[in-house]
Amino acid sequence: MVPSPGGPHPNFPMVAARLLDGLRAEPVRVHAITNAAAQVFTANLLLAVHAIPSLTVAPEEVAAFTRRAGALLVNLGTLDADRRAGIPEAIAAARAGAVPWVLDPVFVDASPPRLAFARDCLAAGPAILRCNAGEFAALADGPADTGAVAAFARRHHLVVALTGPVDIVTDGTRLVRVANGHPLMARVTAMGCAGTALIAAFLAREPDPLIAAAAALLVFEVAGEIAGERSAGPGSFPAALLDALDALDLPLLQARARLT
Amino acid sequence: MVPSPGGPHPNFPMVAARLLDGLRAEPVRVHAITNAAAQVFTANLLLAVHAIPSLTVAPEEVAAFTRRAGALLVNLGTLDADRRAGIPEAIAAARAGAVPWVLDPVFVDASPPRLAFARDCLAAGPAILRCNAGEFAALADGPADTGAVAAFARRHHLVVALTGPVDIVTDGTRLVRVANGHPLMARVTAMGCAGTALIAAFLAREPDPLIAAAAALLVFEVAGEIAGERSAGPGSFPAALLDALDALDLPLLQARARLT
Amino acid sequence: MVPSPGGPHPNFPMVAARLLDGLRAEPVRVHAITNAAAQVFTANLLLAVHAIPSLTVAPEEVAAFTRRAGALLVNLGTLDADRRAGIPEAIAAARAGAVPWVLDPVFVDASPPRLAFARDCLAAGPAILRCNAGEFAALADGPADTGAVAAFARRHHLVVALTGPVDIVTDGTRLVRVANGHPLMARVTAMGCAGTALIAAFLAREPDPLIAAAAALLVFEVAGEIAGERSAGPGSFPAALLDALDALDLPLLQARARLT
Repeated sequence: MVPSPGGPHPNFPMVAARLLDGLRAEPVRVHAITNAAAQVFTANLLLAVHAIPSLTVAPEEVAAFTRRAGALLVNLGTLDADRRAGIPEAIAAARAGAVPWVLDPVFVDASPPRLAFARDCLAAGPAILRCNAGEFAALADGPADTGAVAAFARRHHLVVALTGPVDIVTDGTRLVRVANGHPLMARVTAMGCAGTALIAAFLAREPDPLIAAAAALLVFEVAGEIAGERSAGPGSFPAALLDALDALDLPLLQARARLT
Repeated sequence: MVPSPGGPHPNFPMVAARLLDGLRAEPVRVHAITNAAAQVFTANLLLAVHAIPSLTVAPEEVAAFTRRAGALLVNLGTLDADRRAGIPEAIAAARAGAVPWVLDPVFVDASPPRLAFARDCLAAGPAILRCNAGEFAALADGPADTGAVAAFARRHHLVVALTGPVDIVTDGTRLVRVANGHPLMARVTAMGCAGTALIAAFLAREPDPLIAAAAALLVFEVAGEIAGERSAGPGSFPAALLDALDALDLPLLQARARLT
Repeated sequence: MVPSPGGPHPNFPMVAARLLDGLRAEPVRVHAITNAAAQVFTANLLLAVHAIPSLTVAPEEVAAFTRRAGALLVNLGTLDADRRAGIPEAIAAARAGAVPWVLDPVFVDASPPRLAFARDCLAAGPAILRCNAGEFAALADGPADTGAVAAFARRHHLVVALTGPVDIVTDGTRLVRVANGHPLMARVTAMGCAGTALIAAFLAREPDPLIAAAAALLVFEVAGEIAGERSAGPGSFPAALLDALDALDLPLLQARARLT
């Protein structure tokens, strides 16, 4: 497997900008089952790209919300009784309705029951798995080196988006690395969780999950980079990121993209 | 039914400013049962007018919190097991204690069980129903034109506050239209939900629910308008709205009110 | 009992600054079981001092998260079924693993079942109780004067951090008063709850709970004071507080500390 320097397309920033403009022009619905600390920022990040978020976790309701959505996000950061019951309902509705979905197995490295739950989700066939190195290591029972990530992607027939100082996106054959971002992104809660919701929004428009994940992460990390330069600290950073995302365009993406 | 251009009072901005000043001088308690994504901004919006929010949803506790409040908000945006059990307890306590209450039937157009739950709430007699056109259409089983909204208000003996580009407030006899606001208000999660909480705060001081709802919406939409002019995007907008609300006064309301 | 003007150490701002620098250099984990409205700001306040927050409340998971944490926060502001079951599990894990913990009995003065739950928690031996005067009065069944607070601290073998216009921190023998802060701190939801989480972070590094609580409150109130001077109102205040906390250093603490 050979990385594609510059991304999976000769002008990948243009692909990402077109997807972003498409979202702004034709809003998609994203149903986000996410953790309690991530709900507000996730909804606002989706609204910042003109997507329409819904956040319900109740088992009786998630199927209806999932069916009318363009994509589903399943984030395991809060596993209360409602979400434990609601997540399988939502996944079943997504499968029945061919709604693509993204799994974010938050903190599976810290809690055995959560790891077991995440494995059940993984077996249900998400299009994309977004995680960090610790979470990947727990799921894959081994270190998060590029070869292992690619093998995992092939074995599970999905795209892995492994975020860190440099993000790795691979389907086991193609590989994109996004080197944008800012240290303040790690100083605000639920930043990664919200990024996964953005991946879901892009997946609602783009059938190739590798393109969707890489484009969403590029857009997110460039917005974070701009926000980091403009904000006075971790307090003002999240608002600055949403403002930067709202104003992001092709020239900014082309000038700043660091795809390796 | 004839609209009252300028509002239900010859100098309605003055009425609204006096209510706002009254809230600042003599804080009221508002018990807000609201959705997970709205809790923080709702509490902060109430605090921005010096009201004292409480947010408990536990069935064992809501009656005690409701009894000592000046008004109750029931927002259906999250319907988990606790809220399904707690909302009827809170409504019963409000009825027993003559605490006026406001219903916000979020997303009833998206979920049949939620619509049924909202109808039960409606039958329990809220003073004010705040909703958007889609939610009204689901509840009323018909389009949200002004005549239908007024007929609904008369039939249910309540005030309907229908928000949108122009807000409509009617008790079926009187009609106020508030044309203030800013497009960024639709780009931030839970903005409408928080506005309903502000209606509840005004209802804690003003016995006429039409005056309370129209004054609260005028204050909210003018604050949003000022914030929209001052903020760089959807990220910085919510903080700017709270700052503008905190600084709002009679001259600003008189200069900006667009009541039709 | 005689207060220690200037704090419990001849150069207490230096003690606080060293603890803060220690947190920045060697991040501690804090497991925070806190209320729904406090989770995001609590996590971001912890991240602003480079602590690593976790927020899980699920009974099956809290023991694993508590065991690997340097300190535990138990805040009673939301008492749903999960938290009622999870809090005793977390406290048991903290006791078994010698993880120090802090109790924040939010609104026990408003709800009898919550007061009973708080008394059970108190009997399990927190290192620090953080509350306001109303909550103390409910727990102690008497007014919150300094003598009563000190007697309560001795009887329960803990440190009481009673916050208000002037914060009082006492173990029944030593007494510190922190007179810093800003009126806007009372105009934002969950500010006090987040402050208690900061006390937990300091307790993860400092074995003397009186020093930990007084240093955390000094740092928090000075950051609030700086933020109050810089922000345009209650909307922009929370972000300004996090930015100020991120930039806080010894010279600022020495110039501003008002310990009486």
